[in-house]
Amino acid sequence: MKVLVINCGSSSIKYQLFDMEGEKVLAKGLVERIGIEGSILTHKVNGSKYEIKEEIKDHKYGVKLVIDALTNKDYGVISSMDEISGVGHRVVHGGEKYSESVLIDENVIKSIEECIELAPLHNPANLIGINACMEIMPNTPMVAVFDTAFHANMPKENYIYPIPYEYYEKYGIRRYGFHGTSHKYISNKACEFLGEDIKNLKIITCHLGNGASVAAIQDGHSINTSMGFTPLEGLCMGTRSGDVDLSIFTYLMKKENLTYEDVDTIVNKKSGLLGIYGKSSDFRDVRADKVAGKEEAILAYKIFGNRIKGYIGNYAAQMNGVDLIIFSGGIGENDPSIREYVCESLSFLGLDFDKEANIEGGEIKVITKKDSKVKAMIVTTDEELMIARDTKTIIAK
Amino acid sequence: MKVLVINCGSSSIKYQLFDMEGEKVLAKGLVERIGIEGSILTHKVNGSKYEIKEEIKDHKYGVKLVIDALTNKDYGVISSMDEISGVGHRVVHGGEKYSESVLIDENVIKSIEECIELAPLHNPANLIGINACMEIMPNTPMVAVFDTAFHANMPKENYIYPIPYEYYEKYGIRRYGFHGTSHKYISNKACEFLGEDIKNLKIITCHLGNGASVAAIQDGHSINTSMGFTPLEGLCMGTRSGDVDLSIFTYLMKKENLTYEDVDTIVNKKSGLLGIYGKSSDFRDVRADKVAGKEEAILAYKIFGNRIKGYIGNYAAQMNGVDLIIFSGGIGENDPSIREYVCESLSFLGLDFDKEANIEGGEIKVITKKDSKVKAMIVTTDEELMIARDTKTIIAK
Repeated sequence: MKVLVINCGSSSIKYQLFDMEGEKVLAKGLVERIGIEGSILTHKVNGSKYEIKEEIKDHKYGVKLVIDALTNKDYGVISSMDEISGVGHRVVHGGEKYSESVLIDENVIKSIEECIELAPLHNPANLIGINACMEIMPNTPMVAVFDTAFHANMPKENYIYPIPYEYYEKYGIRRYGFHGTSHKYISNKACEFLGEDIKNLKIITCHLGNGASVAAIQDGHSINTSMGFTPLEGLCMGTRSGDVDLSIFTYLMKKENLTYEDVDTIVNKKSGLLGIYGKSSDFRDVRADKVAGKEEAILAYKIFGNRIKGYIGNYAAQMNGVDLIIFSGGIGENDPSIREYVCESLSFLGLDFDKEANIEGGEIKVITKKDSKVKAMIVTTDEELMIARDTKTIIAK
Repeated sequence: MKVLVINCGSSSIKYQLFDMEGEKVLAKGLVERIGIEGSILTHKVNGSKYEIKEEIKDHKYGVKLVIDALTNKDYGVISSMDEISGVGHRVVHGGEKYSESVLIDENVIKSIEECIELAPLHNPANLIGINACMEIMPNTPMVAVFDTAFHANMPKENYIYPIPYEYYEKYGIRRYGFHGTSHKYISNKACEFLGEDIKNLKIITCHLGNGASVAAIQDGHSINTSMGFTPLEGLCMGTRSGDVDLSIFTYLMKKENLTYEDVDTIVNKKSGLLGIYGKSSDFRDVRADKVAGKEEAILAYKIFGNRIKGYIGNYAAQMNGVDLIIFSGGIGENDPSIREYVCESLSFLGLDFDKEANIEGGEIKVITKKDSKVKAMIVTTDEELMIARDTKTIIAK
């Protein structure tokens, strides 16, 4: 069975075609600058890269080009579109309705539309991608895999904010959490690797990329996560502030005559590592300048790391313990120093860190010593594979 | 030596006169409704209460009445004002300048004035009280004891927010922390009681009242605390939200056309326990209705308790462990159920909770079993005594 995974942005389409026998990626690629000058499709097969440069006026045409590339005689991997058994779409916000992936029909589309207000930057693009695929492949089943779904069964006390309750009833203001597909994938992958039943472990997953979040996983379910109503809350991220004293911004609005749009821009685009370090939002730059002894980089590095420590401690207290801590995402997978910075502060939990195993890194690896009471691991995330798996499961029903 | 402690609000003066030999309270009282119809002074000596009802047009006259009461032939406790060796004033905000209490002179007054912007509700009232006392007692030394002082030596990575750094340089936007006098008092008092040197313990103090905050104390200093730039941040409080996703409020400003003043009112006056529970901001009401099985009370109770657990876990991770957890403040001292709710979730730290000791309560008491690796205690706070002690120390220099 072959499954196509689509992750659609406002001017882009990311895709991967999986052969589910062996869960192998047959081809993948990216359509960029849709509707903008210089649009391009980059297609990768077996380590080779092909660029198709032509005017791509809309997403529908973009999807057509993706299918053309996948079925191309020279660099294609299937002979016809009909070989694709199903398409899995990444959808950012499923609201309160979806705690699992779902076969897309009219009602599902309506629900995704209803969540546009909660994810104004993402859901519209996801919908455009779904519609474009449905037009090009009207007979192929489509599945929506929501970023919020894995967190949808949190206990109420963990998703209700201590603000007037009417805002929850009126507007659905609550903690939703994001990166769910990744938190689910890495926690399950780690348990499989360890030969453990996920239902028996208390797990804390750290998805650390440009966006970053931590989740507490008990009995196989996310019971809490650091991102909240929006992906702003929680950790210090590339350009997002994460947790702040809200009064800072009512103060600044008064002082600098800012609008709420200005505030949104400041906390989402100009804060986080970029806000403290100043030169870049890329953690690799921060770490390099930290090693070089630059004060602002050391400060940004510590703030970033301390927030991770804090959420691990917080969630350990919520679950009365933790058995397994997982690092993932671009930073979590590739930066040994931050894993060390965090784990060295967790020996009180009974975590016996293995410095050497950590430095070497690896796609999936335990980085604590053999008898460590609490295990720490690196697990390379693969949201696309998770989407492909969910799609396979649902269309097989 | 006799020391008068003054805590001045915008229309009130709280006072206590201490005999520092034996740290005994000779008399205490409250002037209320200054400049408002129905102004009254309530004076307490040896369990008896005296009410003086007359027009109190300003704080200066209020202070005069306090001195009159203290020197009154019938219910006074000193023969003349000259017996007062010093006056200790509670001042909420000392900014970045004061990490300790200080003898008040012109420069100190100027500094407190400069912090008015950071504490617009409190510092002006504190200044009025200082000025009134200086006019009535021009020859008596006055000491300022700051709520922020104990937190003033936090490491920089714990007080800088991940927002554009210029806001720290331009407006002094950083974590300040509050309740410092209480956190300092209870941590020192507990160590004295245990016969331990505070420098050897990792301590987490929970000051739980209508306002509430947690502090991490290492080497005798506060290294982090849950209140931040303002007393809004951190725990779920009586009417304050504590930590929230800031985007909730940019969303609400758009949806309901709110101003930043509206937002300030919502998060400071209509949120916290009141926001979830609806009927009251008093934790006793929440607990009573929780026991009665009311859903909204159970929800508010759990959210309140989970935030405390979360900060304890967070700070244990920051310090790589904790030796002692202290409960204080109106709720922390008087509500066995919340101490149990929190501590029962901390056995992973090696905290062996003593349910019976906890239920009995007490002014100062260990509530963990004898061999518990991490100790938990109840310590009744006494900010006034702390202010009196600091005043004594400083005027003796």
